[in-house]
Amino acid sequence: MEEIGQTEFICPSDTFLGIIKGKCKTTLIVLIKKGRNRYGEMCRTLPTISPRMISKQLDELERDGIIERHSFAELPPRVEYTLSDYGETLYPIIREIRKWGYMHQARTK
Amino acid sequence: MEEIGQTEFICPSDTFLGIIKGKCKTTLIVLIKKGRNRYGEMCRTLPTISPRMISKQLDELERDGIIERHSFAELPPRVEYTLSDYGETLYPIIREIRKWGYMHQARTK
Repeated sequence: MEEIGQTEFICPSDTFLGIIKGKCKTTLIVLIKKGRNRYGEMCRTLPTISPRMISKQLDELERDGIIERHSFAELPPRVEYTLSDYGETLYPIIREIRKWGYMHQARTK
Repeated sequence: MEEIGQTEFICPSDTFLGIIKGKCKTTLIVLIKKGRNRYGEMCRTLPTISPRMISKQLDELERDGIIERHSFAELPPRVEYTLSDYGETLYPIIREIRKWGYMHQARTK
């Protein structure tokens, strides 16, 4: 594994966390990966999060190159998201994070 | 993998992030894992972080059951930390997070 030098100016974990922090961003990534990838569908799946907040998270994930937005000129308009190739490299880590999170929830409740 | 229900009240990622967020906590975990586990040594390795902040992070990691503190009644007093068995379950994920973080730093700089 990488060596830690005497000083570490930009913590790589902070870099990672900068990408996935944000209201249930990892849940959105999982939904997209599992094919629940339409905007409206995600809003219905996460009713405790406002559609505006979900939009914001999706925009950030798109900006960071993790997901791709596909807009279809239909009536009603359809917007779907997919993981980018880069997002696919993030996904296995998110899966492990979520698994650990569930375990910790069970352990501490 | 786990199913995402209609609602998800406590996001498992947030649970995970709650444990590792904090000023370079993952770096401390890596240092401990690699045997740079004395308090003074960690302070010297991370000169940009105040010893007080390092203490705080270590206390939180101990409280969360991730690390164990061993105090030796010597002169000068010696304090060492080790990963707990539970902390060991976290470690592979942190390694992947850091690896991804380094990759993302290289990609975006």
